[in-house]
Amino acid sequence: MADILHRVGIKASLDDVYTALTTRDGLASWWTKETRGESNVGGTIVFRFSTDGKEIGGFDMKVLELQPARHVLWEVIDGPAEWIGTKIGFELKQEDGWAIVIFKHLGWREPVEFMHHCSTKWATFLMSLKALLETGHGFPDPNDVKISNWH
Amino acid sequence: MADILHRVGIKASLDDVYTALTTRDGLASWWTKETRGESNVGGTIVFRFSTDGKEIGGFDMKVLELQPARHVLWEVIDGPAEWIGTKIGFELKQEDGWAIVIFKHLGWREPVEFMHHCSTKWATFLMSLKALLETGHGFPDPNDVKISNWH
Repeated sequence: MADILHRVGIKASLDDVYTALTTRDGLASWWTKETRGESNVGGTIVFRFSTDGKEIGGFDMKVLELQPARHVLWEVIDGPAEWIGTKIGFELKQEDGWAIVIFKHLGWREPVEFMHHCSTKWATFLMSLKALLETGHGFPDPNDVKISNWH
Repeated sequence: MADILHRVGIKASLDDVYTALTTRDGLASWWTKETRGESNVGGTIVFRFSTDGKEIGGFDMKVLELQPARHVLWEVIDGPAEWIGTKIGFELKQEDGWAIVIFKHLGWREPVEFMHHCSTKWATFLMSLKALLETGHGFPDPNDVKISNWH
């Protein structure tokens, strides 16, 4: 098993970060504009991504746990084979006037090359979350930061 | 044991990427301006970082392996306790006209919070390497992208 881990600090309230992680509008403003579905516990959030205006796939996440201003946990129930069954968590805490986000994408079966790509890509999306909360503008797909031939 | 993994693609030649990873000038242009020491196999490269114009520490890396345009491997011999004994590798390959960099920071004893920070920070430095080669300007320390209260 292998995990992707990240940490960012955001000059914002924990409540605002939590809202950006747990509402369709919030998620659509930093991860992917095409965010649909139900973001309550037990619901399924549907994230889709595009290239040249054409939907190219994405992820369905079941919401496993929500603790306001503290914790978010999803399980991937549909998407690329390597993602299915993995879990994605966000832990929030206050530190020195910052909202700290501890991010984990847990349970990759193998550290395949695609996992390396997703690790870098998650970092750029967490910087998008930070930008959204600090400046009012994130850079969700399809306006996301391109990192390679794999976008 | 836990590893930090990343993948970026750069519109540049493998030789130019390799030069940026294996010369003091190259490294100083995307990771930290304060890069000293010997970058040949068996040599020690000394990386130092600053805050508010004051040196705050850094890493000493022994160069273990170099394969032109293919592979770079360092071992951390001095720095924060969590880093000592870990290894940092860059694998290079050509794909669809891109130079692909597969990055690994291997052998963390525990997935501590500092590792989460370093994972995100490595992503931003690899994007700095990409920017250096594609635009001529990277963003090495102390002009690096700040991601949190831990800089």
